[in-house]
Amino acid sequence: MRRAKAMAPAGGMVYIVGAGPGDPELLTLKAVRRLREADAVVYDRLVEPEVLAHVSPGAERFYVGKARGAHPVPQQEINALLLRLARAGKRVVRLKGGDPYVFGRGAEEAEALVAAGIPFELVPGVTAACGAAAYAGIPLTHRDHAQACVFVTACLKDGSTNLDWEMLARPRQTVVVYMGLAALEQVCHQLVAHGLAPGTPAALVEQATTPRQRVIQGTLGTLAARVRRTAPEPPTLIVVGEVVRLRARLGAGGSAEQAAPEALAAAG
Amino acid sequence: MRRAKAMAPAGGMVYIVGAGPGDPELLTLKAVRRLREADAVVYDRLVEPEVLAHVSPGAERFYVGKARGAHPVPQQEINALLLRLARAGKRVVRLKGGDPYVFGRGAEEAEALVAAGIPFELVPGVTAACGAAAYAGIPLTHRDHAQACVFVTACLKDGSTNLDWEMLARPRQTVVVYMGLAALEQVCHQLVAHGLAPGTPAALVEQATTPRQRVIQGTLGTLAARVRRTAPEPPTLIVVGEVVRLRARLGAGGSAEQAAPEALAAAG
Repeated sequence: MRRAKAMAPAGGMVYIVGAGPGDPELLTLKAVRRLREADAVVYDRLVEPEVLAHVSPGAERFYVGKARGAHPVPQQEINALLLRLARAGKRVVRLKGGDPYVFGRGAEEAEALVAAGIPFELVPGVTAACGAAAYAGIPLTHRDHAQACVFVTACLKDGSTNLDWEMLARPRQTVVVYMGLAALEQVCHQLVAHGLAPGTPAALVEQATTPRQRVIQGTLGTLAARVRRTAPEPPTLIVVGEVVRLRARLGAGGSAEQAAPEALAAAG
Repeated sequence: MRRAKAMAPAGGMVYIVGAGPGDPELLTLKAVRRLREADAVVYDRLVEPEVLAHVSPGAERFYVGKARGAHPVPQQEINALLLRLARAGKRVVRLKGGDPYVFGRGAEEAEALVAAGIPFELVPGVTAACGAAAYAGIPLTHRDHAQACVFVTACLKDGSTNLDWEMLARPRQTVVVYMGLAALEQVCHQLVAHGLAPGTPAALVEQATTPRQRVIQGTLGTLAARVRRTAPEPPTLIVVGEVVRLRARLGAGGSAEQAAPEALAAAG
């Protein structure tokens, strides 16, 4: 009896798993294995429904994302749910869009688990910037155009968009702004105010890697007006830099899924 | 006859596929599918041998990486090989470590394919920084410590390490230097010279996510000397920023693969 009591918390474990940017085929093998083995899955709105097909029918599922127009489940409540499930001895997958350690609050959830003495594993995923780059045909780096890439979020903890504009407005780098839609106008304005040319290429990638992906392309001077006319849905990424120009040539590499079947059929 | 001749080039296609940071379980489902379907695979030294287990036994394999002490296959020759295979009507996978659009020269290979009229698809992967972060317990972003992360490489096209030090030495961001081992001393020195405190936490992650992963942790003032004593093998990443401190608490999340079996056995 004493032994069983002592063992209960030891049996629980939380896997903080990156689900990738959207396309369910961008799940890693490790993510799939953790989903299959899970007793409970806690997921948010950035996870496509097909991803959950890997979860065992007997596993519990908890949606903690934001419903349209409603508030998201507070982070404290998500943490408490993870602790409760793990303490009940369950193998819990906390499934997050993209990579959990890139603007995913994965670190905060991991810290809550460590503080409670719950073992955890972090499974990295394809981060949204890499997914958008591949499917939109915008390389994040290129030896001739961008020697660095910078990921920032326009959603800071204090609710402001108080970014390090001076750093972001340097030449020869690619800037990717996560969750940038609401701040798009400000981002374009500030980058120009801090020294980038208004003609610097920029794009908004909407719902990257999903069948609903759209890319709205322009410059720091024109993008905001173009985006206003299209009413994009989150998640969105803003990509700024010379590499956006390459999309005219490389954009087809992202839609090869459609092009490939005919090509392969012709080959066969 | 004429028809077959016209179809030959149309049948060929190149898939530029990210193999992830090392752990073969960090391959995506899409990467595995492309490997299984491939007639030919062209891979480099950043790809673990287990990854090639997904390739059909009948497929041709071409190693274009650098042998120890030897020179790598020049990029022009790799491009020519991809074109030759695709023009022969083959489904070719060009397999690259990490993500092809993050310091992988994926863009250059894609441009060569486009110039030759060969259709291609870009399959993103888990980039080395995300893999290292997860397995070493160093979140790339954290709402309390790092609002941005920057990826740079210490191997520039002209052979120099002429980085934008002013940009890299900003506070409240995480800097990840790809292929940074040879330039480690210079990186630490320049970041301090441009304003970061010598006590800023820094780590070198060696062969991230593989069973040979090692993490050498210190500060900008101490890391280079510590690394000299350990003679690490590439690939390596340098991570600089306050988030490196979190490793003391979160480091266990990367080695959970070892910790988990006991925990799960106890639960069962």
